[in-house]
Amino acid sequence: MKQTDIRPANGKLGIMVVGCGAVTTTFMTGVLMARKGLTKPVGSMTQYDKIRVGKGNEKKYLHYADIVPLASLDDIVFGTWDVYPQNAYQAAMYAEVLKEKDIEPVRDELEKIVPMKAAFDKNYAKRLDGDNVKDCATRWEMTEALRQDIRSFKEKNGCSRIVVIWAASTEIYVPYCEEVHGTLEALEKAMKDDDREHVAPSMCYAYAALAEGAPFIMGAPNTTVDIPAMWEMAEKTKMPIAGKDFKTGQTLVKSGFAPIIGTRCLGLSGWFSTNILGNRDGLVLDEPANFHTKEVSKLSTLETILKPEDQPDLYTDYYHKVRINYYPPRNDNKEGWDNIDIFGWMGYPMQIKINFLCRDSILAAPLLLDLCLLSDLAARAGRYGIQRFLSFFLKSPMHDFTKGEEAVNNLYQQYTMLKNAIREMGGYEADEEID
Amino acid sequence: MKQTDIRPANGKLGIMVVGCGAVTTTFMTGVLMARKGLTKPVGSMTQYDKIRVGKGNEKKYLHYADIVPLASLDDIVFGTWDVYPQNAYQAAMYAEVLKEKDIEPVRDELEKIVPMKAAFDKNYAKRLDGDNVKDCATRWEMTEALRQDIRSFKEKNGCSRIVVIWAASTEIYVPYCEEVHGTLEALEKAMKDDDREHVAPSMCYAYAALAEGAPFIMGAPNTTVDIPAMWEMAEKTKMPIAGKDFKTGQTLVKSGFAPIIGTRCLGLSGWFSTNILGNRDGLVLDEPANFHTKEVSKLSTLETILKPEDQPDLYTDYYHKVRINYYPPRNDNKEGWDNIDIFGWMGYPMQIKINFLCRDSILAAPLLLDLCLLSDLAARAGRYGIQRFLSFFLKSPMHDFTKGEEAVNNLYQQYTMLKNAIREMGGYEADEEID
Amino acid sequence: MKQTDIRPANGKLGIMVVGCGAVTTTFMTGVLMARKGLTKPVGSMTQYDKIRVGKGNEKKYLHYADIVPLASLDDIVFGTWDVYPQNAYQAAMYAEVLKEKDIEPVRDELEKIVPMKAAFDKNYAKRLDGDNVKDCATRWEMTEALRQDIRSFKEKNGCSRIVVIWAASTEIYVPYCEEVHGTLEALEKAMKDDDREHVAPSMCYAYAALAEGAPFIMGAPNTTVDIPAMWEMAEKTKMPIAGKDFKTGQTLVKSGFAPIIGTRCLGLSGWFSTNILGNRDGLVLDEPANFHTKEVSKLSTLETILKPEDQPDLYTDYYHKVRINYYPPRNDNKEGWDNIDIFGWMGYPMQIKINFLCRDSILAAPLLLDLCLLSDLAARAGRYGIQRFLSFFLKSPMHDFTKGEEAVNNLYQQYTMLKNAIREMGGYEADEEID
Amino acid sequence: MKQTDIRPANGKLGIMVVGCGAVTTTFMTGVLMARKGLTKPVGSMTQYDKIRVGKGNEKKYLHYADIVPLASLDDIVFGTWDVYPQNAYQAAMYAEVLKEKDIEPVRDELEKIVPMKAAFDKNYAKRLDGDNVKDCATRWEMTEALRQDIRSFKEKNGCSRIVVIWAASTEIYVPYCEEVHGTLEALEKAMKDDDREHVAPSMCYAYAALAEGAPFIMGAPNTTVDIPAMWEMAEKTKMPIAGKDFKTGQTLVKSGFAPIIGTRCLGLSGWFSTNILGNRDGLVLDEPANFHTKEVSKLSTLETILKPEDQPDLYTDYYHKVRINYYPPRNDNKEGWDNIDIFGWMGYPMQIKINFLCRDSILAAPLLLDLCLLSDLAARAGRYGIQRFLSFFLKSPMHDFTKGEEAVNNLYQQYTMLKNAIREMGGYEADEEID
Repeated sequence: MKQTDIRPANGKLGIMVVGCGAVTTTFMTGVLMARKGLTKPVGSMTQYDKIRVGKGNEKKYLHYADIVPLASLDDIVFGTWDVYPQNAYQAAMYAEVLKEKDIEPVRDELEKIVPMKAAFDKNYAKRLDGDNVKDCATRWEMTEALRQDIRSFKEKNGCSRIVVIWAASTEIYVPYCEEVHGTLEALEKAMKDDDREHVAPSMCYAYAALAEGAPFIMGAPNTTVDIPAMWEMAEKTKMPIAGKDFKTGQTLVKSGFAPIIGTRCLGLSGWFSTNILGNRDGLVLDEPANFHTKEVSKLSTLETILKPEDQPDLYTDYYHKVRINYYPPRNDNKEGWDNIDIFGWMGYPMQIKINFLCRDSILAAPLLLDLCLLSDLAARAGRYGIQRFLSFFLKSPMHDFTKGEEAVNNLYQQYTMLKNAIREMGGYEADEEID
Repeated sequence: MKQTDIRPANGKLGIMVVGCGAVTTTFMTGVLMARKGLTKPVGSMTQYDKIRVGKGNEKKYLHYADIVPLASLDDIVFGTWDVYPQNAYQAAMYAEVLKEKDIEPVRDELEKIVPMKAAFDKNYAKRLDGDNVKDCATRWEMTEALRQDIRSFKEKNGCSRIVVIWAASTEIYVPYCEEVHGTLEALEKAMKDDDREHVAPSMCYAYAALAEGAPFIMGAPNTTVDIPAMWEMAEKTKMPIAGKDFKTGQTLVKSGFAPIIGTRCLGLSGWFSTNILGNRDGLVLDEPANFHTKEVSKLSTLETILKPEDQPDLYTDYYHKVRINYYPPRNDNKEGWDNIDIFGWMGYPMQIKINFLCRDSILAAPLLLDLCLLSDLAARAGRYGIQRFLSFFLKSPMHDFTKGEEAVNNLYQQYTMLKNAIREMGGYEADEEID
Repeated sequence: MKQTDIRPANGKLGIMVVGCGAVTTTFMTGVLMARKGLTKPVGSMTQYDKIRVGKGNEKKYLHYADIVPLASLDDIVFGTWDVYPQNAYQAAMYAEVLKEKDIEPVRDELEKIVPMKAAFDKNYAKRLDGDNVKDCATRWEMTEALRQDIRSFKEKNGCSRIVVIWAASTEIYVPYCEEVHGTLEALEKAMKDDDREHVAPSMCYAYAALAEGAPFIMGAPNTTVDIPAMWEMAEKTKMPIAGKDFKTGQTLVKSGFAPIIGTRCLGLSGWFSTNILGNRDGLVLDEPANFHTKEVSKLSTLETILKPEDQPDLYTDYYHKVRINYYPPRNDNKEGWDNIDIFGWMGYPMQIKINFLCRDSILAAPLLLDLCLLSDLAARAGRYGIQRFLSFFLKSPMHDFTKGEEAVNNLYQQYTMLKNAIREMGGYEADEEID
Repeated sequence: MKQTDIRPANGKLGIMVVGCGAVTTTFMTGVLMARKGLTKPVGSMTQYDKIRVGKGNEKKYLHYADIVPLASLDDIVFGTWDVYPQNAYQAAMYAEVLKEKDIEPVRDELEKIVPMKAAFDKNYAKRLDGDNVKDCATRWEMTEALRQDIRSFKEKNGCSRIVVIWAASTEIYVPYCEEVHGTLEALEKAMKDDDREHVAPSMCYAYAALAEGAPFIMGAPNTTVDIPAMWEMAEKTKMPIAGKDFKTGQTLVKSGFAPIIGTRCLGLSGWFSTNILGNRDGLVLDEPANFHTKEVSKLSTLETILKPEDQPDLYTDYYHKVRINYYPPRNDNKEGWDNIDIFGWMGYPMQIKINFLCRDSILAAPLLLDLCLLSDLAARAGRYGIQRFLSFFLKSPMHDFTKGEEAVNNLYQQYTMLKNAIREMGGYEADEEID
């Protein structure tokens, strides 16, 4: 039964990225360099990881591409939207994430990637002021314009498939509103009525992508696809959606470290996380309304891994706090500092401190690659709607809360989900359950 | 088929601990307090962890004792050997690990635990100078005396079963010597010939335990049961053996953190671990010959988790160094500092620093409890020889290197092995494979 | 001319502390224990430091008490006000700063220290809710009541001198208001008019102390004595005033570490300070209005040590941020984390991270002792008004900003000021200038 | 009397550096770039610091060059010796300390700086294996050859003055030997007798420099000029000598941080310093014999700042340990980790941890500049022999132990000594004493 019902990855895959900043250009540059053999796409599961398939004497370890039909790096074509008009080469140089020598060999290709005008609303990101922006009367018009962009791009580049991924800023917090977000019909009406309070620009991107038969991935902590209206749209268009918020620095560590505590049945009395970051993302997050969106996303991680209801002696009433601080001296280099107060035998306290000097874009880039390739795979395999198996890559993984589903944040449970999905799509048995 | 072939845990279980220092007294005090309901045995898997058994709709989460017949805390009786004659109450006060108020309620019981004379050889631990020591002409005589101790203790306390566990100091490094350690016959001959160079005192304890039908557990990094002669003895006596080196602070973190890196396909260029500790263990390790034993034990962890042969782009030639430093101001409070140099997308470097302010005895105590209860379980289940499923608790887990077996150090793989063993003994399916 | 014009320290010195929490009880307990020879007053300059007096062959190193007439620990009598009625023994036990064994030997003495009713206004510290509070119609009445308290205490205990020191919570931020705070007359009028917005309760304590001929010291970052009205009062009553904000953890380190950078002509691009604290002080500071008061106090430190106008290449536009976080798991144990981004030769960046696991009350207690003894000394020496020589002990040292004076925050410059003042009062030459 | 007896800094100053590795090339490149206005010599006291001269109304703050006649950067000519033949451009590129764009503008000048053959003895640095080495029969011949090098360089470059500075590796430890090192006569005899055990190659450089009328500075922890024979030679030739060991990372912080503790009369129970470094210096230090030299140098710092004899309650029996670890992943970027156990009021413990991510060559380069310019100044001012005022720049400052002199390690006392010397040479009063 191997792979029979997955359409092959023939033809070009258009990856259209919302936002052409540090993360996007690091991603694009790396892919272009890697396919020339000039660099290694370290951190990418689709390029490196091996999964065991089969059991006992049958077992073997295979790369993803040897299990399922993945698009090749060679078949990728990049497009982008941004409020600033600089091309991807200029943006990469401005970002100062990569050294010049790691950009120059693909300068020509990058220069050809010129941002289309962005669907933008300054109220959603007050600290941004670019003017490479669409002029639209309503949210519906905005959506229409984006659909046109996608069609044009697809045709111009001869793509057989498109994936749209958001790698732009965090928008201000949009709380879930039953009346507008509850059904597809209501959402479409709100777009036509130009309800700017409830319809974020990011929703227009997501709607447009799905309408054009492209999966959509939300890389920021925006509400965008976390609403039933969008799930309905994904169902209707038979397209995958995934989100939200790329799991890069501190949350990656948290989702991997909390299981150490839990696995050993140690207690937790407090976890204090602070981090400093200086890039445009940090600037946007310095605005309280935008920060709130991020904070909500970051806090949930721990609560779903170490649960008081499972182990009341160990995890009742621990104090969890997350702080994000804009700190320009570091530019794209983030720094996380976690202080973890645990207790052991007879309740005696101990402390763990983790200091992570990380690079946001370097950690995010391979996630974009994997999320795009795997969403495209899911689409070809006929898996539509929320893609829980992609939780591994995301800080605040999607789940259907209307059905009482809970997010899975434990890194190893997420990994098991990812492996099982690949196995299943490859015609192997999904032999593990999360526990 | 549930539990049918495991003998029930009827009667008293004698736990005889070699060494009556900080770790031992913290363990004993905690058990005595917990069974009076005055404290919580935090960190103990047998007391807290729940394992999923069954799958799909059948699945449920059960405590170990609800799956397999475990000895109850109420049935434990403690004995000990030590080179110092102080009783367990005095030793606990001297260790200064626990607050007075956490010891006083069980003072009477602790005072009754008086160390038997130790089988000791000052050449194996130069910095110790107690004189509560057996006077034996040969290693064989030493073994005989220990066997007599075990028999007397068992009879006097009306125990139905005994477990012997080593929680004493690290001995000097005893390299594997084929001629002496290769067969049981050779080992017994060396004992009778009083070959003090190749037969460590710890080997006499292990031999005596097995000969008396008791499982033996090695909590320090000593060679003791890592030799075919001892495996033969375990086979002959149908007894479990386990070792070595309790996985407490830095190695616990390492075996849990390295999988984060590996799971995300990030590269590693170096890992530098240093730690400072001030208790008697630290003093002994300040002697180069004893330190060497420990270092060998600590280094292997990483190498078996992140392997160059699996991911040459990511794990070739990383630099791994472990330093242990005696630092008296901290007493029993250890502090680990790990610096981890990783690299991501396009080879860009990042750094992680982990500072662990831990307490050796607090982390070790629940390991002693679990290792004793689970070894006793294994014995009753007829599982003898090397107990790989106990790797979870150990820094340098036993494995039959003569068969090319490799140690499993990844915390989550160890956890899976542990769960599967419990499931199997409980008559459930061991539904996961390590991967 | 030695000491001739300083009145001797004859008779009892009453130290009346506003607030009877962790800091106050740690201070009192330590003094009581030290005078019984049961502990050491570590951290106290008046008890430990030696100052060089004389130069060349004449030079010798003397304790403060050998240079100037200081009150002896034996002559101290303690009083206190608090919104909670518990006596100092109960408060010390509740605070959990000191171990029981370090409190019990002076239990009797502590139990006799029972808080008088506090002059309190809940609007100034919303998170406190004690009811051991004076019932006063106006701020003027509040002041009168406090004056009566001081008189009664002095008489009852047969004190020859009184010092009043604030060791209570941070009040909400009271900005300087020319009309009310500009002159003594205006302040008195506002008290009579019961202007609760501009007259903080702490101002009533300060006014009352001065009116009764007692020096007043502000240990929190409250505006209290930082106003010309209070300077006029100090002038009129010929009394010393000092403030503000005890220099304990992070700021102590900052004021000592920044000089390392400055002295070596290294550049600074950013300094990020965060800290977590869990005691009542932290709880109060979790209220934004109270935090603001603290933040203003903490930020100024760096700016007066590393100045762009002196070294534009090195100190222009560095980014300085201070965060305080309430984090209950730590109780009185604070933790500071500083990240310092410096640059050296050719502008190349380096990083320094300082993690300070400190104890607020342990660091504050000796400051209270020194500030009280030295304020009393100053009063006897006829030095009234702002006591700049006490800057050493304070986070945000007083200075007459109406005359363009600048605060001195560099720890070593502060130390020089302290030494020079002692030398001068002792009749020696103040032989150093700050530079 | 201003500056009258200092010879002016006319003509070219030849700076001849022993060793042409990371430190040397960073130093040279920075000076060459700075004099073109392309970079800033951050960290250099002679280029940035201002000293107060005069007191009271007379006081003003002047740069060093406005107080004393200093050589200008424009007048510097560089020479070097090394066991590898690569020119300074090649060596700078190999070192990877500076970015290419910070080297290229002075490439031509750097390429002209070609190392002369080194006076080398492999027994003194086993891990180095270059072959650009002089072939000399005896140590005396070695010295003669070096003198010839200096004379040729001076003539060829038309220098009016020469300074020789050691920035090469740490040699193996050479203990002081009265018979050989006690007098100049004995040393010269040992050179002629080719006593390779007691006469290190570095001694030949020092002797040659002094003999040719050039000051000599020892930047590594070698014994070289720490012997009476060399002091006699300096006396005889009227030349300044300075050493030893550039105070760069961890010791810089220690000598600045220990005073914070001491100034506040806090107690110290332990200080543990470890650091990791990966450059050639680290490689050499991985050899135990070379490490020993370094360790002796690093340990003394603390002991002379916090003294038990001054404050027995506070500084008796603290535990001080220094560890250096070779760790290649970091290359020239060193990392120091200090853990400091202090105690305060009533003996309660607190901890400070300092993590310094520094760059060896970036911190060392300005020290070379300052030491060369100030040694040249001293020579012109007729100050010969040990230059204690340069202690500020050195980890293990020279002092005449035969007269019972003690090293001054406190950063602020060193700074005072430096300022006073500049003031005195500038004809101002040295108005401060160390205390």
